[in-house]
Amino acid sequence: MAVYTDVGVEDLSVFLDRYDVGKLLSYKGIAEGVENSNYLLHAEGGHFILTLYEKRVDAGDLPFFLGLMEHLASRGITCPQPVKGRDGEALGTLCGRPAALVTFLDGMWMRKVEARHCAAVGEALAKLHLAGSDFPLRRANALSVAGWRPLFNASAGRLDSVQPGMHDVIAAELDTLEASWPRGLPEGVIHADLFPDNVFFLGDKLSGLIDFYFACNDMLAYDVAICLNAWCFEADGSYNVTKGRALLQGYAKERPLTGAELDAIPLLARGAALRFLLTRLVDWLNVPPGALVKPKSPQEYFRKLRFHQKAQSVQDYGVAARELA
Amino acid sequence: MAVYTDVGVEDLSVFLDRYDVGKLLSYKGIAEGVENSNYLLHAEGGHFILTLYEKRVDAGDLPFFLGLMEHLASRGITCPQPVKGRDGEALGTLCGRPAALVTFLDGMWMRKVEARHCAAVGEALAKLHLAGSDFPLRRANALSVAGWRPLFNASAGRLDSVQPGMHDVIAAELDTLEASWPRGLPEGVIHADLFPDNVFFLGDKLSGLIDFYFACNDMLAYDVAICLNAWCFEADGSYNVTKGRALLQGYAKERPLTGAELDAIPLLARGAALRFLLTRLVDWLNVPPGALVKPKSPQEYFRKLRFHQKAQSVQDYGVAARELA
Repeated sequence: MAVYTDVGVEDLSVFLDRYDVGKLLSYKGIAEGVENSNYLLHAEGGHFILTLYEKRVDAGDLPFFLGLMEHLASRGITCPQPVKGRDGEALGTLCGRPAALVTFLDGMWMRKVEARHCAAVGEALAKLHLAGSDFPLRRANALSVAGWRPLFNASAGRLDSVQPGMHDVIAAELDTLEASWPRGLPEGVIHADLFPDNVFFLGDKLSGLIDFYFACNDMLAYDVAICLNAWCFEADGSYNVTKGRALLQGYAKERPLTGAELDAIPLLARGAALRFLLTRLVDWLNVPPGALVKPKSPQEYFRKLRFHQKAQSVQDYGVAARELA
Repeated sequence: MAVYTDVGVEDLSVFLDRYDVGKLLSYKGIAEGVENSNYLLHAEGGHFILTLYEKRVDAGDLPFFLGLMEHLASRGITCPQPVKGRDGEALGTLCGRPAALVTFLDGMWMRKVEARHCAAVGEALAKLHLAGSDFPLRRANALSVAGWRPLFNASAGRLDSVQPGMHDVIAAELDTLEASWPRGLPEGVIHADLFPDNVFFLGDKLSGLIDFYFACNDMLAYDVAICLNAWCFEADGSYNVTKGRALLQGYAKERPLTGAELDAIPLLARGAALRFLLTRLVDWLNVPPGALVKPKSPQEYFRKLRFHQKAQSVQDYGVAARELA
């Protein structure tokens, strides 16, 4: 939860002059997102989300993110749509930062995930992968296997202060994944951060996907593995096979998984767990004094990693390979 | 800025069942207020602010606050209106906390205050005082002169760590104010916290007042003194007589000040500065580790206090007494 940049009415009014959204009526900083400053904005032309991209976001990536949202929306995926200025440009500058206006989506994210939500997310993820298949821009995944060792090195000396023995487990895991990370699986645009707070529901119906600021090109099945981590564990750390089954079946209904993808699921899930473990460790070990943001616990992803290390096949995730291919 | 309580969709839906606002469409935690958790909520019936009252608010005071907003709105003051449940009750319970829904007000608060804003605030404050004159409930001001010594005692030993010499200045000031605090001035309902972030404008027009959670019964001119502190100083600490003049004239246009009130302005302004200085000191000296809320600087109000100590009469605030009475 964060608002890093306090925007004044005067600056905001100048910024909005570029857009056909009518007069500004109100704006409130919202406690969502940890990378950027977000405002819910009401203008005569409707409700919007105003995002100021803070320094953790590379401005060079913004055309990819905004272009992707526009592309997906044009393919029927409900996601925020960048609002273009009268000059045709979605991206502007506000308070010295790159900034954009996107349409506001109704819907709520589920604090209590149930299997039917997992089914809906699996289905939506597959649709996103299909809709993204002809998106022309590319962005490498900086947080895939090649990016993990630098993150490990940044925290290595302090890992055992978080949990005794963590250093050796992660070091060995990194060696394993670097040696055996899957290659040659189907690739495309992935969301890469489709956690419950990025998926909106209205009643029982999935109503929209948000936060495309980690989206990139990578193996599609890696995105599935991220969702298995994010959606299918209980608060006590246990894996819920019913949720896993629902998510995988929901996905495969829209986009059947190849045999090679199914074989790779346990390894991809280990990689996904390690990726979130490592970034959470960096955040956890580097909280600035007086920080407004409370980092998320790394232990959660250490436990998930330990689960995946014991998994033998996709069957351990709740469904037999023959049911999905 | 704060959201202390994360509300789940399930709990919120149960809470909303009491109200005729239609289906819930979205809600977002907003980064406003330091005492309570606030959500901007969109339902079929409109936009609302949902407030969960956290432990710093005395639940016994809530009928006063909510009743006051309803009373003022019925007298033409634009302020949030509590939404009543089908049982006629505005106050409910959510996530174990007292909670209420109020109407959403458009408008923005001014980061860059100009004299015309001060004139509008003075006028609105006087109208609020007049509209509150027949409000039947009463609430004592816990943060008036009798409440200051306990706050001083809570921080006394550490004041010189904030600024050398601060302890003796505040101790002497407290003795002075306790001995000479005005009595017998016109009393009524005061807002007691009408800072710029609690006053909305649309264009040049003041469009609404919010945050009545410090409102109480006290001397009306003390509320004017609070506003002089909150609105009429520049960022460099200097007092702006043009703004002070605008604020006092705006007020007096709606409610002429008595001679005794005008004479008391410098002393009331000292008291108001001391009140905010003391609560900011308590917050500043008691930041819990990992706090999500960054306390406001106490020094700002120490400088304001030093200004008021040198003031001789209301003339030092920008306008001659004969122009206001």
